[in-house]
Amino acid sequence: MSRETASFSPGIPDGDDRERRMCTRCDFVDYVNPKIVLGAVATWEDKILICKRAIEPRLGYWTLTAGFMETGESVEEGAMREAREEACADLEIERTLAIYSIPRIAQVQIMFKAKLRSPDIAPGPESQEVKLVTWDEIPWKEMAFPSAVWALKQWHGLKGETVHLPFGNPDGTDHMTGG
Amino acid sequence: MSRETASFSPGIPDGDDRERRMCTRCDFVDYVNPKIVLGAVATWEDKILICKRAIEPRLGYWTLTAGFMETGESVEEGAMREAREEACADLEIERTLAIYSIPRIAQVQIMFKAKLRSPDIAPGPESQEVKLVTWDEIPWKEMAFPSAVWALKQWHGLKGETVHLPFGNPDGTDHMTGG
Repeated sequence: MSRETASFSPGIPDGDDRERRMCTRCDFVDYVNPKIVLGAVATWEDKILICKRAIEPRLGYWTLTAGFMETGESVEEGAMREAREEACADLEIERTLAIYSIPRIAQVQIMFKAKLRSPDIAPGPESQEVKLVTWDEIPWKEMAFPSAVWALKQWHGLKGETVHLPFGNPDGTDHMTGG
Repeated sequence: MSRETASFSPGIPDGDDRERRMCTRCDFVDYVNPKIVLGAVATWEDKILICKRAIEPRLGYWTLTAGFMETGESVEEGAMREAREEACADLEIERTLAIYSIPRIAQVQIMFKAKLRSPDIAPGPESQEVKLVTWDEIPWKEMAFPSAVWALKQWHGLKGETVHLPFGNPDGTDHMTGG
């Protein structure tokens, strides 16, 4: 079946107070809400799980396991699913590490502190390579996204603390483009 | 301009791995992602701000200030905007109180602990009435949504603690319908 190309124009729906993308052919309103990204700083003993991306954006760069939340799952389940999909890794979620707002790309990222249930990891279809690295082995210059760097540094700053407030955006990054 | 009624059918887009709603007329795919609700337990001295809803769902019932996150704002800004819109209230966000996952309605709710900068409040267009109540005055039987009750009880349990992990769903509510 051949389909026409989607066509939208801006307009204010009845009863609303701001402009939305409205279909030019039918009554569909494309409400754009911020999307939730769920990720984890996941460790096995003193090593951290990182993945080399096999997809754009930032193909070939390293990151933490993270991705868009799907419907039908909790935030913890989503972070576990992403680790399974990207690194065949089985996570135990320990707690919320950070909540980042990245308005420029309309994302809220919730990052968890997690433990690997086993050191068995392997690249999923979205990863070229996955590995467990010590703090000193993190390839800082080849990291894909600022938010993974924020999470790693905030995680490292905990130094064994088990009760803490979730971190937010580091100073000066409130409206920057992150990942 | 008269528009046709939107028409979607399920299908799996190229490169995806699950069923999405696809327009039957054009190539638009309506990716449905969980939505973020931002709310606050906001206080003035020993009193808590509550609002009586002037809109469905749960018209006439009481709740905390809360609503859908918009694009272009941080999670804290969204919680402040909702308090302004629903109760003409000016909030200072103190910290993250709780993160609830409500998969049945595809929502993640982030609730903050907040202080009112002044006791001046008034109903916005979505509220019939707003007021500041002590803990003993909370109209528990007339509360609109379970999640507002969870947040109030978790807030009350803090008893002055200032450093704590964000609360999650109370036991047994992981997949219940909340608000």
